[in-house]
Amino acid sequence: MTKAIDVEGNPSYIRILDHGFVGLIDTMGDDHAIVQAARVSYGSGTKSVREDRGLIRYLLSHRHTSPIEMCEAKLHIKIPIFVMRQLVRHRTASLNEYSGRYSEMTDEFYVPAFEDIKPQSTTNKQGRSGEMPGLEKERAHNIMSRIATENYNEYQILLGKDDGGYNIADVVGVSRELARTVLPVSNYTELYWKQDLHNLMHLLKLRTDSHAQYEIRVVADAIYNLVQPKFPLAFEAWVDYVRDAVSVSRMEQLLLKDLLQGKSVQQLMQDYNSQTEFLEHYGLSKREFEDLRARWQLN
Amino acid sequence: MTKAIDVEGNPSYIRILDHGFVGLIDTMGDDHAIVQAARVSYGSGTKSVREDRGLIRYLLSHRHTSPIEMCEAKLHIKIPIFVMRQLVRHRTASLNEYSGRYSEMTDEFYVPAFEDIKPQSTTNKQGRSGEMPGLEKERAHNIMSRIATENYNEYQILLGKDDGGYNIADVVGVSRELARTVLPVSNYTELYWKQDLHNLMHLLKLRTDSHAQYEIRVVADAIYNLVQPKFPLAFEAWVDYVRDAVSVSRMEQLLLKDLLQGKSVQQLMQDYNSQTEFLEHYGLSKREFEDLRARWQLN
Amino acid sequence: MTKAIDVEGNPSYIRILDHGFVGLIDTMGDDHAIVQAARVSYGSGTKSVREDRGLIRYLLSHRHTSPIEMCEAKLHIKIPIFVMRQLVRHRTASLNEYSGRYSEMTDEFYVPAFEDIKPQSTTNKQGRSGEMPGLEKERAHNIMSRIATENYNEYQILLGKDDGGYNIADVVGVSRELARTVLPVSNYTELYWKQDLHNLMHLLKLRTDSHAQYEIRVVADAIYNLVQPKFPLAFEAWVDYVRDAVSVSRMEQLLLKDLLQGKSVQQLMQDYNSQTEFLEHYGLSKREFEDLRARWQLN
Amino acid sequence: MTKAIDVEGNPSYIRILDHGFVGLIDTMGDDHAIVQAARVSYGSGTKSVREDRGLIRYLLSHRHTSPIEMCEAKLHIKIPIFVMRQLVRHRTASLNEYSGRYSEMTDEFYVPAFEDIKPQSTTNKQGRSGEMPGLEKERAHNIMSRIATENYNEYQILLGKDDGGYNIADVVGVSRELARTVLPVSNYTELYWKQDLHNLMHLLKLRTDSHAQYEIRVVADAIYNLVQPKFPLAFEAWVDYVRDAVSVSRMEQLLLKDLLQGKSVQQLMQDYNSQTEFLEHYGLSKREFEDLRARWQLN
Repeated sequence: MTKAIDVEGNPSYIRILDHGFVGLIDTMGDDHAIVQAARVSYGSGTKSVREDRGLIRYLLSHRHTSPIEMCEAKLHIKIPIFVMRQLVRHRTASLNEYSGRYSEMTDEFYVPAFEDIKPQSTTNKQGRSGEMPGLEKERAHNIMSRIATENYNEYQILLGKDDGGYNIADVVGVSRELARTVLPVSNYTELYWKQDLHNLMHLLKLRTDSHAQYEIRVVADAIYNLVQPKFPLAFEAWVDYVRDAVSVSRMEQLLLKDLLQGKSVQQLMQDYNSQTEFLEHYGLSKREFEDLRARWQLN
Repeated sequence: MTKAIDVEGNPSYIRILDHGFVGLIDTMGDDHAIVQAARVSYGSGTKSVREDRGLIRYLLSHRHTSPIEMCEAKLHIKIPIFVMRQLVRHRTASLNEYSGRYSEMTDEFYVPAFEDIKPQSTTNKQGRSGEMPGLEKERAHNIMSRIATENYNEYQILLGKDDGGYNIADVVGVSRELARTVLPVSNYTELYWKQDLHNLMHLLKLRTDSHAQYEIRVVADAIYNLVQPKFPLAFEAWVDYVRDAVSVSRMEQLLLKDLLQGKSVQQLMQDYNSQTEFLEHYGLSKREFEDLRARWQLN
Repeated sequence: MTKAIDVEGNPSYIRILDHGFVGLIDTMGDDHAIVQAARVSYGSGTKSVREDRGLIRYLLSHRHTSPIEMCEAKLHIKIPIFVMRQLVRHRTASLNEYSGRYSEMTDEFYVPAFEDIKPQSTTNKQGRSGEMPGLEKERAHNIMSRIATENYNEYQILLGKDDGGYNIADVVGVSRELARTVLPVSNYTELYWKQDLHNLMHLLKLRTDSHAQYEIRVVADAIYNLVQPKFPLAFEAWVDYVRDAVSVSRMEQLLLKDLLQGKSVQQLMQDYNSQTEFLEHYGLSKREFEDLRARWQLN
Repeated sequence: MTKAIDVEGNPSYIRILDHGFVGLIDTMGDDHAIVQAARVSYGSGTKSVREDRGLIRYLLSHRHTSPIEMCEAKLHIKIPIFVMRQLVRHRTASLNEYSGRYSEMTDEFYVPAFEDIKPQSTTNKQGRSGEMPGLEKERAHNIMSRIATENYNEYQILLGKDDGGYNIADVVGVSRELARTVLPVSNYTELYWKQDLHNLMHLLKLRTDSHAQYEIRVVADAIYNLVQPKFPLAFEAWVDYVRDAVSVSRMEQLLLKDLLQGKSVQQLMQDYNSQTEFLEHYGLSKREFEDLRARWQLN
């Protein structure tokens, strides 16, 4: 791994998880580059900062995304393999990753902090939430730490660097590309990641979301914190029109319009024989109705 | 169109064709950024410029293209619509183009210089080559100029800016998006074009080729001249291993290997009853054989 | 152009505009292929059609788009060049277009029907709306028809097929790639277009929108009508959760939540000294507020 | 994992490695679809199979790749995670992968067969080659098997399914997304993979190459064997003009041209004071010269 990076005290780097980091290496463009590209389409007009802000908000709110592609960010990231496997699904980035075929893998492995060890969520099939006994957390932490150490030792033995008590004379060692197959997906990897701002914003939308796994959320949050100051107007608009916006379905609109005429949910329901009939009228599932009530704070 | 650009005397801009230009607005990265990204995969090693050159040549010659994607170039381009239609086929770029729906189209149209007016090529189904009488060139030039002027005038009439002798009181004018449909594809358009260096090199490979239409070749040449100085080692390697490299088919290799044993084409042919049999042995078509002879200067 | 296509009476083809068509050539996958791909991630579970529908609606409403990419549609399209220039901006499709370098361009040109000739919209900077005098419509129609005929004649003269009264002996003719530069962007072109269902749905979202130019809207509508029956559950969900959904900004949510507590806009405004103060509180621009009122039918 | 797939005896599936498979689920198009798309550009012409073959060979040899994108293949693949990590770098595919957040990971792990356990290659920094003592192979095999079993057991303990002798009452279990982090990258995963034929051919070019890791080469070979019969003409041309073609650099061409005039390497060298001077004249590195000699069987 790159030993030269002095992450500590480097303002372009943020430490994440137990051994990881996110660093901002380079950017291309700024808020004004977005405006410049948009104006080739929409005509020149006036050019004050106030008007730049208005144009950028217009672009984001109307999903006119091509001017936002004119900017780029290049990041240097160190994360566990299982997080990398999620990150790499974003196909619009350019990336170079550390290779376990060319080089020896690092001896660093992710072991979650006590407060991040949680049971399976009962409401979210893919996530974790709630609490568990401290004793079981301790057990989990111990298992994860031990596996990291043991697997790494076996990796060294396979590479022929450690005899491992096997008493084999003249150890040759297995090739790196094979030996690394015993390492767990908690093993850290390292990469450069370059992406245009529009696609990076899409990644941030998905990976800062509460449904994303905690370990990739901290990566996304670090990216946001590093990149946002370079494009303050674009990110302000992104928060307002994308990140914190909600998509309201055709059916939800029907109900909201009726409610906005001044009636309550209870009053509307009175016209139906049952909640099922009421929901059928609007085309909503029971679950969608519950989500809608929570989202709009209806009683 | 953007009037503010002072192309004349601006070293970042190259004038092309009769009214066009290519300008380099911004780049991201340099030769060393390519090396830096490659080294995260291949291990750190030494770092002299001489070794940077060697690594970059290795990357290009082995088509290890991902580190080259770490660089970007952003261009400002003014070209006729028919050239834009070719450029836009390169789907990996980000682009913003002048819009004939939002703004009025320019009154500039491409009319080829006399020396660029040529008849259909007899060998290349898609190209032009050879000469034609000066009188016919003049006629072609006049037709193209006249159509540009006439169509632009009709465009103005449609927009309601010019009565055009129609004697209509209170002209309303047709919408821009409809009026522009009468403009020929020689009409100039303007755009920002951002692309990573790997994909830009692919564009340059295809569009600096002698089979590309002359009018896009001058665009590609201008891009090359502007971007090359920013990445001198990468482009040196690209010329040697990509642009001026040739792909030699399985069949062509068979014949070349036999020739490299010291025999001439004539000597090899003596073992066959006919050229057809000879070509069948190697699996070459007659045309491929002629191309091969020309390429390798065989007699 | 392909003469073999018998569009008339072919149920896979829909005629559009004056000389265009959209044909569905092939599809890959169906609703069940989406479900199959999703289940490799989410686990198998039950498999009734009712549950397929539920899963597909879940995917669309939560923007889990990768299973939808498992389907494809291949279309055969004939449209004017200016519509093609809009279509080609969707970079995720595979396409092959008729080439004016290889072959002679067709003599067909788009001339809008009387009812589609409209003035520039006063509210939409890029569109058309409202009415104009019949006399001016007639004039516009005549100009467009005449330019089509005249430019095509000049194209034939340039190609050397028509003397055009120039009295040049032994006409050579200009190459096709140059001669076609005098043709207007209303000239028809032809292409194959293949795209995965997720990206096709994105195209349809943008191009069936009322802000899209009428001439590409009819293309998008025809695509929808041809492709929808192949993926009925996916398109039903798309209409409900994507096409007819609205994105509600952070600011708009603030106001809607207050309104949903039972207060009217007037009642809320009473707490502020002015509309400006009221809008500032919610972070809405005047235009956004007007749009919001219209969208939610607030009085 | 999908239990329903009856891989055994299913002609669309090929078993690979110890527990993996590649299955061809669906294709779109065939050789003729490529021809059909090409002809919209190049004009119709005649249509015999013989001419289809000629056109397809022309397309592949001239890298006219867009008609080849008109075809698709969808595969069902089961491979170890470390192979998946290589596969996913091909960003042009659509894919759905089994999720260790939603579902429990399988108990299957890749352990290489004895004959595939090899030491680090001395010539190829990323590969393996040569032999090693049987005893060490056995040791390696044992380590890999044992780690698979042990890590899977710890995974079960973390999930709360196995007490593991920890004597914790009322085990809750850690969430799946955390527990899976102890599994090694030899663990099997499963996915659907859909890609257009042009990009699939690019994947096959890179991953059937002798420099690709053995474990992904068997995946690529299986894909080739399943997909090739659906597009026999396209793959015949691909083998001849792409897979088995070589790229000959500008410098290599200079030397080959001189050799093809009938001189041997020795004769050419006589004009220089040293091999270094000779190589400098042609711009070749020592390594490139050695590769060139081997490739062209020069003595």
